[in-house]
Amino acid sequence: MPTESSPSLSRRAQAVAPFLAMDVMAEAGARERRGEGVIHMEVGQPSAPAPRAVIAAAQSALADGRIPYTEALGMPRLRERIARHYAETYGVRISPERVVVTTGSSAGFVLAFLALFDAGARVGVPCPGYPAYHGILRALDLIPQPMILRAEDRFAPTSALLRDVHASKRLSGVLVMSPANPSGTVIEPARLAELCATARGLGLPFVSDEIYHGLSYGVPTATALQFDPDALVINSFSKFYCMTGWRIGWMVVPEALVRPIERLAQNLYISAPYLSQVAALAAFDALDEIGAIRDGYARNRALLLDALPGLSFTGIHPVDGAFYLYADIAKLSGDATDFCRRMLAETGVAATPGLDFDPGEGGHHVRFSFAGSEAACREAVARIRGWLGR
Amino acid sequence: MPTESSPSLSRRAQAVAPFLAMDVMAEAGARERRGEGVIHMEVGQPSAPAPRAVIAAAQSALADGRIPYTEALGMPRLRERIARHYAETYGVRISPERVVVTTGSSAGFVLAFLALFDAGARVGVPCPGYPAYHGILRALDLIPQPMILRAEDRFAPTSALLRDVHASKRLSGVLVMSPANPSGTVIEPARLAELCATARGLGLPFVSDEIYHGLSYGVPTATALQFDPDALVINSFSKFYCMTGWRIGWMVVPEALVRPIERLAQNLYISAPYLSQVAALAAFDALDEIGAIRDGYARNRALLLDALPGLSFTGIHPVDGAFYLYADIAKLSGDATDFCRRMLAETGVAATPGLDFDPGEGGHHVRFSFAGSEAACREAVARIRGWLGR
Repeated sequence: MPTESSPSLSRRAQAVAPFLAMDVMAEAGARERRGEGVIHMEVGQPSAPAPRAVIAAAQSALADGRIPYTEALGMPRLRERIARHYAETYGVRISPERVVVTTGSSAGFVLAFLALFDAGARVGVPCPGYPAYHGILRALDLIPQPMILRAEDRFAPTSALLRDVHASKRLSGVLVMSPANPSGTVIEPARLAELCATARGLGLPFVSDEIYHGLSYGVPTATALQFDPDALVINSFSKFYCMTGWRIGWMVVPEALVRPIERLAQNLYISAPYLSQVAALAAFDALDEIGAIRDGYARNRALLLDALPGLSFTGIHPVDGAFYLYADIAKLSGDATDFCRRMLAETGVAATPGLDFDPGEGGHHVRFSFAGSEAACREAVARIRGWLGR
Repeated sequence: MPTESSPSLSRRAQAVAPFLAMDVMAEAGARERRGEGVIHMEVGQPSAPAPRAVIAAAQSALADGRIPYTEALGMPRLRERIARHYAETYGVRISPERVVVTTGSSAGFVLAFLALFDAGARVGVPCPGYPAYHGILRALDLIPQPMILRAEDRFAPTSALLRDVHASKRLSGVLVMSPANPSGTVIEPARLAELCATARGLGLPFVSDEIYHGLSYGVPTATALQFDPDALVINSFSKFYCMTGWRIGWMVVPEALVRPIERLAQNLYISAPYLSQVAALAAFDALDEIGAIRDGYARNRALLLDALPGLSFTGIHPVDGAFYLYADIAKLSGDATDFCRRMLAETGVAATPGLDFDPGEGGHHVRFSFAGSEAACREAVARIRGWLGR
């Protein structure tokens, strides 16, 4: 959606669309500064604070006072702990050398795309999907190639879809996400294995966005590393570990890319924030606390799945995992952006218009994040019900 | 210095050279984990912790527990405080709307270059200069054009130099830094005004890296915003405010670039770290504490300027500001990288080889950071003296 034109503005900056969820958040923030309440269902952000052990680790580092740069690839003991996480959670052995600590998954995408692709390369991304894939790829002169997910596949990318898109569009790589934003779809382990094999057969680097791992409701999730040791995995402490504003994540990359990615990270980031690295180290031992938070998401999910269909939200996507519900609002409005703006202004409930995720069908879809408290979720449903006059 | 070649590695990643200071820091870190001490003069990092008020602000935010994303352009009150800083320090009025809070100056460069330049554009950068300019420009398919600084200009870029380089190389923009890394040179205000006017006359966007502002020794510094309201200024809390590992900085950008840069920041960063933003807000009120730290740098500077010439370090650059001393070691070694490696291994003193800053003359230059304690600086001089056998 390039709009501005200025003699001094680059073409690639013009090609980067706004991240509407962030715009809604900015509007919601302005509303809050005016003293009006907001129920935040627009941004994928847990309302729960980070686990106590995480906060305590940061407090202790602060008391010590020294908050230096770290190695560009991250603190060695955090890289070791993340490697151990793969052994413990998935039974996959990876060397700590292959772990790159990043400033959120945002930095992971930039580093992955820069390391793998040159200008003009076309990268397959799921549609609907996380909007920043497009923005980051465009900023780096790469071409996001939407892979249109199908209801009959439960909005999961499939080997057949990847083959089709590659046949017509000549991809240079592919990115998948499971559990997915905004659909919540989890790719079944056997299907993920197939996708990895297909990408490998086609010679395409495979980037697996696993930021919602740990958040699924009764279905198993697998890491791409179980099926392809050369997969490039991107993850973060933001979602499962409730550490959004800390800006801390990680990648697992093939051996051959470690040093090139280190050089890129040195130049583009210097290092991830120190306090966040120290704190993240404590996150892996806070599973009890996090389990309770996840149980809250499960209750919110059930609440929304129970209420929204009766309010004319239709075509609700799977919600196997993550903390999003993505629904069609065609029966309510033909313009989701306007719908979200009015809902925020008139009820204080912030949600994200679907155009963020899908320039095609998104015009009549809305995404709700249910990562807030159960009380907030219940209140949001009540307000929306009242607003829609039912 | 592209070395790796791999079928899956992009050409642009191959074009990014390592940041040698970071490599030395990684080596120094390994040495420390083996229990051997290191005197860190390799990285531009104050050994002093952040001011007490900064730590206290972070502690209070941690106690509250909520560490969320912020608006992509940064917390409004931090943007307002930074705008006020320009009024108070330079007498320049800028709207808070033009302030962009970034994840360190690193993010500032990425955002500035992406907003201003398209692939293939040539950007004038000082040589010797900050190495990440090259790495970031190369990663983004831009061409760093070294502007070779001259001893007769005290290693300051001049209008004549800019005109010459533009005449032969057709620049798309220019970046200058004052106080400079590694030379310490401060561009005199009248000369900076000339440079701004020259760039404007040539139609070149002017990027001013002011990260070492506040750190100068008896000479005045000016912001480019005093001379060109459209200059794109990049700054950070890392150096003057002793907040390196917090990863927090800012830009001041022309009105017309605010929204494009917001879109880029939303997609590439989401937001700068929350705790660091809250903490940075307190930094502006800690000038007493910071003044004392700067007085320590001044003593270290005097100590090095007194000792190093007698140890065969020659051609020492101006050191008007910042906290670096850049010297020629041709009388000691023809290979600065080897010299630094041996010095670290044999004395525990880490310094950065000049190739980081200058692929030409840097092979026989070394940069010392004197941002450490006076005791460490004195001890480093004693060890180097002993090592060189004098």
